[in-house]
Amino acid sequence: MTETAALPEAVDEIRSVALRAREASYELAVATRAAKDAALEAMAEALTARSAEILAANAEDVARAEAAGTPANIVDRLRLTDDRLAGMAQGLRDVAALPDPVGEVVRGSTLANGLELRQVRVPFGVVGMIYEARPNVTADAAGLCLKSGNAALLRGSSSARSSNAAITAVLRDAVASAGLPADAVQLVPGDTHESVKALMRARGLVDVLIPRGGAGLIRSVVEESTVPVIETGVGNVHVYVDAAADLDKALAIVLNAKTSRTSVCNSAESLLVHADVAADFLPRVVKELQAASVTVHGDDAFGAYDGVVPATDEDWATEYLSLDIAAAVVPDLEAAIGHIRRWSSGHTEAIVTEDLAAARRFTAAVDSAAVMVNASTRFTDGGEFGFGAEIGISTQKLHARGPMGLPELTSTKFVVTGDGHVR
Amino acid sequence: MTETAALPEAVDEIRSVALRAREASYELAVATRAAKDAALEAMAEALTARSAEILAANAEDVARAEAAGTPANIVDRLRLTDDRLAGMAQGLRDVAALPDPVGEVVRGSTLANGLELRQVRVPFGVVGMIYEARPNVTADAAGLCLKSGNAALLRGSSSARSSNAAITAVLRDAVASAGLPADAVQLVPGDTHESVKALMRARGLVDVLIPRGGAGLIRSVVEESTVPVIETGVGNVHVYVDAAADLDKALAIVLNAKTSRTSVCNSAESLLVHADVAADFLPRVVKELQAASVTVHGDDAFGAYDGVVPATDEDWATEYLSLDIAAAVVPDLEAAIGHIRRWSSGHTEAIVTEDLAAARRFTAAVDSAAVMVNASTRFTDGGEFGFGAEIGISTQKLHARGPMGLPELTSTKFVVTGDGHVR
Repeated sequence: MTETAALPEAVDEIRSVALRAREASYELAVATRAAKDAALEAMAEALTARSAEILAANAEDVARAEAAGTPANIVDRLRLTDDRLAGMAQGLRDVAALPDPVGEVVRGSTLANGLELRQVRVPFGVVGMIYEARPNVTADAAGLCLKSGNAALLRGSSSARSSNAAITAVLRDAVASAGLPADAVQLVPGDTHESVKALMRARGLVDVLIPRGGAGLIRSVVEESTVPVIETGVGNVHVYVDAAADLDKALAIVLNAKTSRTSVCNSAESLLVHADVAADFLPRVVKELQAASVTVHGDDAFGAYDGVVPATDEDWATEYLSLDIAAAVVPDLEAAIGHIRRWSSGHTEAIVTEDLAAARRFTAAVDSAAVMVNASTRFTDGGEFGFGAEIGISTQKLHARGPMGLPELTSTKFVVTGDGHVR
Repeated sequence: MTETAALPEAVDEIRSVALRAREASYELAVATRAAKDAALEAMAEALTARSAEILAANAEDVARAEAAGTPANIVDRLRLTDDRLAGMAQGLRDVAALPDPVGEVVRGSTLANGLELRQVRVPFGVVGMIYEARPNVTADAAGLCLKSGNAALLRGSSSARSSNAAITAVLRDAVASAGLPADAVQLVPGDTHESVKALMRARGLVDVLIPRGGAGLIRSVVEESTVPVIETGVGNVHVYVDAAADLDKALAIVLNAKTSRTSVCNSAESLLVHADVAADFLPRVVKELQAASVTVHGDDAFGAYDGVVPATDEDWATEYLSLDIAAAVVPDLEAAIGHIRRWSSGHTEAIVTEDLAAARRFTAAVDSAAVMVNASTRFTDGGEFGFGAEIGISTQKLHARGPMGLPELTSTKFVVTGDGHVR
C-alpha cells in the first residue's frame, strides 16, 4: 500500500485552485464554440507576442538543468525556441479548427409516453493533467481542455517550472482578454510531491485526472488517486508474423514498427514468428534489424543467429523504448495469442498474414486498444486516425480506449423534456 | 486515509478466481449471441427447475436474519419465493431478448492512406459486482455480464450468503450445460471484508468494479479501489418550481417525485420554489405533501406553514430515501442553480416551467446525469429510458453517466486493416 496522505497546506492550496477552476468551468460549459475559438486564437497570438518573457523563464530552467548535470538530450527537450513557440501557437490554432464536441447529441428518441430524451455531450468540468514532458504540453493541454469546455489544472515537471509558470501566465491573460475566465487555465501550486498527492485525492473537486509520462508516474497516479483516472500510454507492443504472411510486407512492418521512432509508445517491442516461416524469415529479419542497429533479444530459435542475445522473461515484459527487440518463434497462432495475453500491456498488436481466418481470429482474440492487420503498429495515433488533436492514448478499458480526441474529454448528460409527465 | 491492505490469503483467493474468470472471459468474448442467449435461457430454466435447493438455502439466510433480530422489512427483502424465482428467470429471458452490444461498430472510416479503421464494441473482460441488495441481484448481474461477454465476480451481502451460493451453483451448471465456461459466473470467496478489500486492489485482474448499494458501500469502494470503478446511485435530487411554472403540473410532479416510491435514488429530496409563485404554491404543496405523510423540512418561508420543521444545512445535503423533503424559496432561477450546484449529488434535477429561456438555462447550467423539464425525476431509469435491462445509474462522469444498459458494460477496440502499410 502506498502512503497517500498529503500535507494539510497542500490540500488547502489544491482546494482553493480547484474551487476557482470549478467556478470557471460553469462559464466554459456554456461558452459558444465561437467564444472558445477566439480564446484559442488569442492564446496562440500571445505565445509569440510575449515570447521574450517565456524564453527568459525557459532559460532559467535550462540553466538549472545544466548546472544539475542533466543529460544533453533531456536539456534539449526542455529548451524552447521561437520555432518551438510558433509550433505551440500552431497547435492551438489546429485545436480551434476542430469541431466542438460539446452539445453533440449522442443519442435521442421520443419515448412511448411522449417524453423527449436526448443524451448530450457536456464537459467533464475540471480536468487535472499531470505530465513530465516538455513545456509545450502546458499549452497543448490548456488548449484541448478549453476547447472541450473544461477548466484545466496543470502539473508539469518541476524541471520546467519557470517555463510552465510563464506560459500559463501568458495563456491566462489571453483567455481573459477574449472574455473567458482566466481560471480556465491554472498551474497547480507548489513544487513538491505533496501537491501532486493532494491533487490525486481531490475527489469531488477534480472530475478526472490524466497522467502523461513514464510508466512510474502513471502507475503511481493510478494507484494513489481517488479522482477517476484515464491511464495512458505504456506500450509493450507485439508484431506477429503468421505462417501465411507475405514476408516482404512482414519485414517492412517489423522494421517500421521498431525503428521509425523508438521512444514512442506505439513502437514494437516484441516480435513473434510462426515456426513454419522461421527458416525463411529469421535470417532476413535478424540481418535487417541488426543493420538498423537493433539488438535482438531472442529465444533459442533466434539465438542460432550471430549477435542475438538470449531473452529472459524480463525481455518479454519490457517496454524498451530503445533499439532493442524481444523475439521468439511460436508453434502456431494460438501460441502467439497466448504470449500476447501474458505479456502485452494492451496498447497495440499487429498480425502480418494473407490468411483471412487467421486475421479474424487474431483481431477477435487479442484484447488490445488497437489491433492491426498488415499495418505497422506506429499507426496507433490520434493524428493518423484522423482525430486531429490527441490528448494521449488510453490503455484502460473504462471511458476511452486507444487514441483520445476532444470527444474523449467530455461526458454526457440526459436532457428529458415533458409536459407535466409523472410515473 | 483508509487502510486498504488485505490479508495475503484473501489476495490469493481473489487472484485464483480472477484468473479463472479471465480464462472464461476469452471464450465469452468470442461467443456468438446465439450461444449467449442459449445460456441465459438455460439459466432461467434452472432457477425454476432447481427452486427447491435455492429456497432451502434461502431459508437458512432468513432464519439467521430473524435470529439476529433483523427488522421484518429487511428480512422480507431477503426472502425468496417461487414467484420471486420466476421473476428472476423472466429477468434473464428479458436480457436474452436484448441486442448483443458486442461487435457493434461504433465508428469506422477508410483513412487517406487506405487503412480501414473500425472501432468495435468488446467486453470489458472481468467485471466485479459488489452489492448489498436482495439475492435476485446475483442472477441479474450474472445475466447482464454474460450477455455483454464479461465474466462476473459477484460479492453479495453476507446476510444472503447461502442464497447467493445456491443461485450461483445453479447458474454455473446451466452455463456449462449450454457449452459456455462455468467460470463465467463466480461468487467471490470468503465472507469477510478482507475479500472485498482484495477484490478492490485486484487491478489488472479485474477490469471494472461496480458497487450497488448504500452510500457508505459506494464511498468505500470509490476511495479504496485501484480497479476502475463505476459509481452508482446516490441521488440528492431536486425539483425547482420556476416563476413561469404551471402550478398544477408542479404539484403533480413534486408529489410523484417524492411519494411514488421513497426508497429509490431518483425520488426527490429537495424542493426549490421561485419567490414569485411562493404565495400561491407553498400552501398547496405543503398541504398535499403533508396529506401524503411527508415531513417538510423548510426554510423560513416554508416555516410559516403549520407542521413544517426547520431545515438545516444537513437537510440540504441529505438523501432521505423516506417521507421527508427539504424545501426552500429562492429569489430567482440563478439562485436555484446555485443551490443545486452546492448540494446536488449530480443524479437528477427537474425544472417545472413554461418559459423556454428558463428551461434552456436550467438544462445547460445544471450538471447532473439527468435534467428534466416538466417531468418527474422518477423517470431517470433504464427501463423508462428504453434501455431494457439496467445495471445501475452512474453518477460519475467517466465512461457512463445516468442509467446504464448493456452497452455500458463494454469497452471498444480499434481494428485497423492494411496491406503492408508503414509510416
